[in-house]
Amino acid sequence: MPFAYRSTVLAAALFLIGAAVAVADPLPSWNDTATKKAIIDFVEKVTKEGSPDFVKPEERIATFDNDGTLWVEQPIYTQVTFAIDEVIAMAPKHPEWREKEPFKSILAHDRAAMLKFSIQDFEKVVAVTHSGMTVQQFQEIVNKWLADAKHPRFKRSYTECVYQPMTELMQYLRANAFKTYIVTGGGQEFVRAFAEKVYGVPPEQVVGSMGKVKFEYNKEGAPELIKLPEVLLIDDKTGKPEGINMVIGRRPYGAFGNSTGDQQMLEYTGAGNGARLMMLVHHDDAEREYAYGADSKIGTFNDALMDEAKKKGWIVISMKDDWKTIFPK
Amino acid sequence: MPFAYRSTVLAAALFLIGAAVAVADPLPSWNDTATKKAIIDFVEKVTKEGSPDFVKPEERIATFDNDGTLWVEQPIYTQVTFAIDEVIAMAPKHPEWREKEPFKSILAHDRAAMLKFSIQDFEKVVAVTHSGMTVQQFQEIVNKWLADAKHPRFKRSYTECVYQPMTELMQYLRANAFKTYIVTGGGQEFVRAFAEKVYGVPPEQVVGSMGKVKFEYNKEGAPELIKLPEVLLIDDKTGKPEGINMVIGRRPYGAFGNSTGDQQMLEYTGAGNGARLMMLVHHDDAEREYAYGADSKIGTFNDALMDEAKKKGWIVISMKDDWKTIFPK
Repeated sequence: MPFAYRSTVLAAALFLIGAAVAVADPLPSWNDTATKKAIIDFVEKVTKEGSPDFVKPEERIATFDNDGTLWVEQPIYTQVTFAIDEVIAMAPKHPEWREKEPFKSILAHDRAAMLKFSIQDFEKVVAVTHSGMTVQQFQEIVNKWLADAKHPRFKRSYTECVYQPMTELMQYLRANAFKTYIVTGGGQEFVRAFAEKVYGVPPEQVVGSMGKVKFEYNKEGAPELIKLPEVLLIDDKTGKPEGINMVIGRRPYGAFGNSTGDQQMLEYTGAGNGARLMMLVHHDDAEREYAYGADSKIGTFNDALMDEAKKKGWIVISMKDDWKTIFPK
Repeated sequence: MPFAYRSTVLAAALFLIGAAVAVADPLPSWNDTATKKAIIDFVEKVTKEGSPDFVKPEERIATFDNDGTLWVEQPIYTQVTFAIDEVIAMAPKHPEWREKEPFKSILAHDRAAMLKFSIQDFEKVVAVTHSGMTVQQFQEIVNKWLADAKHPRFKRSYTECVYQPMTELMQYLRANAFKTYIVTGGGQEFVRAFAEKVYGVPPEQVVGSMGKVKFEYNKEGAPELIKLPEVLLIDDKTGKPEGINMVIGRRPYGAFGNSTGDQQMLEYTGAGNGARLMMLVHHDDAEREYAYGADSKIGTFNDALMDEAKKKGWIVISMKDDWKTIFPK
């Protein structure tokens, strides 16, 4: 083959590869519905220079709830399962728990009693399982637990019970210069333990419910941050925009949730100028995941939220119709 | 000129420009002292792949105190001057202040009395000047004040009383993939109002003393974040590593301060593995700026801190000897 001809072929081949990359579907796990189109339209609008909706790269902030938005939250929040497992693991060193609620019910595997736990009961469980160690030690405990624990129905690790379409959405936004944050009612340190590996979200982009930490010196005189059982922020409902203000200090352009706990975050996002994208994952797929909403204590999605979504142009994602696949392969 | 010759000249010229850029001094306002060398050595060590001290780009975090480290804090913290000016501006609507401390002393310009103010007095001043409005409204007030206010000695705006060598250091670190954070005892919202414009530090990279905010709906039904007079974090001393954990969630590789208020942040940074850079600005230049330290109530730099710096290999920056220029031209 003469050299000139060969290089023409090469150039043509490179052009075709380039074109293929350019048109590659950024959201392959999404069906071609209006929902997917709305996401792509939004991203194109805010990233196109000269567009009236153009957003400067440094202002491109997107916030994602975690439980029920990025990973499975049924039949019970993963962090609650973790806390229960920790209580069971710690029990041999706490014989007094056998006669003391809420530990007694947990150790007796009394599911009915656990379902009736009050906030105070949960606070006691969190106090013994989430404090009294350094932040780093706590995160090692979380990662050790995550390495072994399996979801009761899907029989895969919790970090594999993440929604593939949502991780693609995060990647797509990041490829368009968005900073993706997690804004979770779950514990900030708990989610930070795995968010970078699982979602590509670094610790500084995880906003969550916060406990106090105390700076002190250990026996060797080295400074440490010890987790205390005192609450600093419950990052749920009105706490979400408050937490966003504490950690981010900017109003998001995109906000993604699935329940009444995310309502105020979406309202706060939508109250900004210009194009904003607000979306709610609706769990309507009992076959592939779960179907729940109005009557669920976990991930409540009631009629009032559905009405507000319609009124304000928030997009409701149907897991059943909009998602080609649910979990990563 | 024949084409081939012309393009050789062009190539040579481009090479020379490239070489000039490569050797350009990243810290032109620093004298060629051991301090400057230590900074450059540190950056080269942590950015060189294969070096035992190599730090992955996503882990490159550097934290800077603000008052006395990035800008002038004498004769009094800028934010205190702001609060006093605000009390004076608000006074016509508060006739009761004329007989009520601490406002009475402020309105009488009684400097001696103001110097004796207790924490409670300051809290009263902060409560009336830093709460009851939205976060955005507060930042507009701050920027309006900054646009007009002048430093009493340097007769230039406060945002021009920043240390040119330190802004160069921040830029140099950012050019080497560091995320530069401000970790200030000052108010987080106060510093966020100007940090992006003045230092190139975006709001999400400002950690400061935090007040609570409250999510509520205004008369038009729009969601707002209202500043409350309650304190959530005093980001000073032990509060600095605690604030770093809340907002960043990673241990810094570089930490820069100037007083006992920064001690724990430097200790926490230095307790990490591998190469870390801890530096303290020492105000020893009465002629060009100020000379203070051990006996100063503002920016205390006592003998114990100097001893710890020596013992732990923290680098003390002499403004007098290490800095060619103090302020931007």
